[in-house]
Amino acid sequence: MLVLVLNAGSSSLKYQLINPETAEIKATGLCERIGIDGVIKHEIAENRKLEIQHPLPTHKEAIEFVLDILTKGDTQAISNIDEISAIGHRVVHGGEYFKKSTLINSDVIKKIEELIPLAPLHNPAHILGIKICQELMPEKPNVAVFDTAFHQTMPEENYLYAVPHEDYTKHQLRKYGFHGTSHYYVSNETIKLLNKKDSKIIVCHLGNGSSICAVKEGNSIDTTMGLTPLEGLIMGTRSGDIDAGVIPYLMDKKNMNSHEIVDYLNKKSGILGVSGVSSDLREVIKAAKDGDHRAKLSIDMLCNRIKKYICSYAGILEGVDAICFTAGIGENADLIREKVCSGLEFMGVEVDINKNKAKANSGIKEIHKDTSKTKIFVIPTNEELIIAQDTYQLVKA
Amino acid sequence: MLVLVLNAGSSSLKYQLINPETAEIKATGLCERIGIDGVIKHEIAENRKLEIQHPLPTHKEAIEFVLDILTKGDTQAISNIDEISAIGHRVVHGGEYFKKSTLINSDVIKKIEELIPLAPLHNPAHILGIKICQELMPEKPNVAVFDTAFHQTMPEENYLYAVPHEDYTKHQLRKYGFHGTSHYYVSNETIKLLNKKDSKIIVCHLGNGSSICAVKEGNSIDTTMGLTPLEGLIMGTRSGDIDAGVIPYLMDKKNMNSHEIVDYLNKKSGILGVSGVSSDLREVIKAAKDGDHRAKLSIDMLCNRIKKYICSYAGILEGVDAICFTAGIGENADLIREKVCSGLEFMGVEVDINKNKAKANSGIKEIHKDTSKTKIFVIPTNEELIIAQDTYQLVKA
Repeated sequence: MLVLVLNAGSSSLKYQLINPETAEIKATGLCERIGIDGVIKHEIAENRKLEIQHPLPTHKEAIEFVLDILTKGDTQAISNIDEISAIGHRVVHGGEYFKKSTLINSDVIKKIEELIPLAPLHNPAHILGIKICQELMPEKPNVAVFDTAFHQTMPEENYLYAVPHEDYTKHQLRKYGFHGTSHYYVSNETIKLLNKKDSKIIVCHLGNGSSICAVKEGNSIDTTMGLTPLEGLIMGTRSGDIDAGVIPYLMDKKNMNSHEIVDYLNKKSGILGVSGVSSDLREVIKAAKDGDHRAKLSIDMLCNRIKKYICSYAGILEGVDAICFTAGIGENADLIREKVCSGLEFMGVEVDINKNKAKANSGIKEIHKDTSKTKIFVIPTNEELIIAQDTYQLVKA
Repeated sequence: MLVLVLNAGSSSLKYQLINPETAEIKATGLCERIGIDGVIKHEIAENRKLEIQHPLPTHKEAIEFVLDILTKGDTQAISNIDEISAIGHRVVHGGEYFKKSTLINSDVIKKIEELIPLAPLHNPAHILGIKICQELMPEKPNVAVFDTAFHQTMPEENYLYAVPHEDYTKHQLRKYGFHGTSHYYVSNETIKLLNKKDSKIIVCHLGNGSSICAVKEGNSIDTTMGLTPLEGLIMGTRSGDIDAGVIPYLMDKKNMNSHEIVDYLNKKSGILGVSGVSSDLREVIKAAKDGDHRAKLSIDMLCNRIKKYICSYAGILEGVDAICFTAGIGENADLIREKVCSGLEFMGVEVDINKNKAKANSGIKEIHKDTSKTKIFVIPTNEELIIAQDTYQLVKA
């Protein structure tokens, strides 16, 4: 059995064809510039990569084209579309409706639509992707897997903001958190490694967007992203935590409205804004090594913020069995892991500098000292596999 | 020698007449409703308290009236105004100009004026207070003691926000922090108790406004309040930390502009907003004991936030020798101290429940277990004494 995993963005479509039982990836790719011109990066199992220029006026043509290249010619991964048993859709916002993945019906679509104000860029694209699949493959079941679902176990003292209560009851103002599928995957892998039921785990998903999650006995109890993905850590172009009083101050100084300021905090800030070098941490680390002061400063700020969240989550977990690093930066930037973990011996966290620096192989890596009370892991994330597995489970049932 | 300590607000004036060498308070009081009608609460050394109704059309009449009651009749504390050697003014915002207290001259006044955009409610009132004193007592020196000065030792990775660097260089956008005089006083008292030069101290100033400060070797290295006093902890009516993305979201939902939303986050939120009971924690604790769910929730949120900051500051300090509680809530609410400190044994913090509950006397109290690596203290703050002492030191020199 194969599951087609789709992640439809406003002008992009990521896809992956996976066997959920063996985790084998049959094909993976990305359609970009949908509605503009159209570029498809396609990769099939045997490491054959190709880039195709093809007009993609709408998401419908993009999905049709993906089904086409999956089944035909050079790019072929399967002989027939019937080999795809179901489609798993990544959906960013499930609000308080969805505490786990769900088979899609008209009621589910209606609820994802209702949640558009909470994810104005993402949920409309997801609905589009779902509806096109229903049209093109009417016989196949569709499943929605939500970024927010894993965090629905947070207790109310952690998901509420300190605002008048009716803003929550009337306006759904609360912390939702994101990257839930990744936090679930990594914490679940960690639980297997720890072999401990009452585990206390902190997952650092550090990528283009970044968030940290406190996981107690397998459940998310707190996370750094909030109502929106702006809150929390310093990211490539996002400020993360900032005094809300900054908004009217900057509006006056920069002659922008509040939507423009929040957009500016999302797109011009973070590592890019502080360093002035790039939003890509690899370039910033290089510049810092070459002596660029602001590049170094942005790395110090990034690492301080991560370290502070790890310690604060250790506090509410009342200790921590494992700290895990995942996603692009978490898996690859040993400098960041070292800076974040060092100096925490007082709470039982001892990073092993050599293990941390050792060339990463593709799998899980331990980077703590043998004497460390807290284990530290590098665990490659695999959100697509979770989407495929959830889809498979729901379709099978 | 006596110093008159003044804290001029927009419609209020706090005053205290202190001997900086002995810490003896000769008189203390508060003028309220200046510009409206005028109420003066006056207290002289022998615990005689009185409340006086007297018209106070402007701050000038208020200061004249204070000088009058200090030297005459029933309310008299000194025989003659000549006994006052200098006036120490509390000034909220010293920006990056003032790293310590300073003798006031025209250049200092000009700088405090320049900083009005950063403290629009406070600095204008302080300038007024200073100018009236210069007019009424032209021969006496005036000293400014800044709430922000103690935090000027923060390293740039802690005081900068992750926004484009020119917002800092052009618009002075950064974390300033407040309550510096209190954090200085309490950390300094703690250093005497620890008798350790390379001390790592976390001061929790929990009052009507609240902030926490990480103090390393006597210097502030981080604090929870930011550009404005909205950031950080949950307070009586302030939300503290909140996703900046909340502002445009709430603007749309509540049909308010961003200034109104920030005002709402400052004045209608926090403990008051969550509990719906009161901004006064004593009433909220009472309601929680009577079973009110939202009152209990607001206390849990408050304590969680404090605990998270304590742990995050322990992280950047790389350990903590002492945690100190001060100000109204910090000195009096044993429930809050217990909840905040419990569960932190993994990092060497062990609160002694009985010592913590023991009836507070007026002085310093130890509330840690004998086995605790980290000491926990309750230390009554005394900002006025610091203002008087700084004033005395500068005038003497």
